[in-house]
Amino acid sequence: MVNMQKKTIKICFITVAAFLVLLISGCKEQTVTKANASREQMLFPKGQQGPAENFTGKAWNIGLVANDSIYNTVVGNVYFEPAARSNWHIHPAGQILIITDGVGYHQIKGQARQTIKKGDVVKCPPNVMHWHGASPESGLYQLYIIPNTEKGIVQWMHPVSDEEYNNAK
Amino acid sequence: MVNMQKKTIKICFITVAAFLVLLISGCKEQTVTKANASREQMLFPKGQQGPAENFTGKAWNIGLVANDSIYNTVVGNVYFEPAARSNWHIHPAGQILIITDGVGYHQIKGQARQTIKKGDVVKCPPNVMHWHGASPESGLYQLYIIPNTEKGIVQWMHPVSDEEYNNAK
Repeated sequence: MVNMQKKTIKICFITVAAFLVLLISGCKEQTVTKANASREQMLFPKGQQGPAENFTGKAWNIGLVANDSIYNTVVGNVYFEPAARSNWHIHPAGQILIITDGVGYHQIKGQARQTIKKGDVVKCPPNVMHWHGASPESGLYQLYIIPNTEKGIVQWMHPVSDEEYNNAK
Repeated sequence: MVNMQKKTIKICFITVAAFLVLLISGCKEQTVTKANASREQMLFPKGQQGPAENFTGKAWNIGLVANDSIYNTVVGNVYFEPAARSNWHIHPAGQILIITDGVGYHQIKGQARQTIKKGDVVKCPPNVMHWHGASPESGLYQLYIIPNTEKGIVQWMHPVSDEEYNNAK
């Protein structure tokens, strides 16, 4: 009888183990679906890596609307990998940023560094030095709109130093 | 001894039941997180319902960049509920649409209806009649960019008939 009891306990434990394996694999499948859903936040193809003379770290750019004389507007998407950022630069007609995912920074020369995140809209006025990029911990996905391109598109300047990047003031 | 065996089996079944409850609730929590993540596709607040004189069905608009004389650009987000669509209308300086989620339609007067979906970029030239909206099965999330607003923003016209909406030609 003691043997039979041991056998029953063994069967019970095997049943528990089987349920555990089935349910954990079910949960895992959901997690994978979730991870894929999160990857779909990348709305557009990654595009080309921004040149090292204009960016610190890896930034990926894809053009969505090329410049022409009908719309006078350039639109594109940049994905900044964590800690990546643009050089300081100027847009003769200004720039509008729409943050579609992640967390990053935007700074206008002489002003405090702003933290920017998913859903934020940032305006940088014409002929004002600024830079933008990802936070150290999170990448940044941003659409950019450059209006009135008949006035010019971009003038690239010097890199953002680590001190400038890290200084929240 | 038989009683003790029955007791052991009972304890085992209670253990299995407890594991089931814990694991199923764990899975449920993940599903809720996933549902929230999917709702996050809505990048911006829903905004205000578009007026019935300009839209068929429910379309929700939120302005992101208001018109001014610096950028001469209006940016906003529209969510069309399934089967909702704009009236025919004209933008004196054209319009750029960026589809951020869902599936819908865009048609320029005299041309075939286009199916548009997440990641697509659509240009509608200045002074051309067009309409846009959701497919019958899926809503449509779209950013709109109206450039060169010094030329005007929008001229609303008559509704898109069911025949026009359903005709893929």
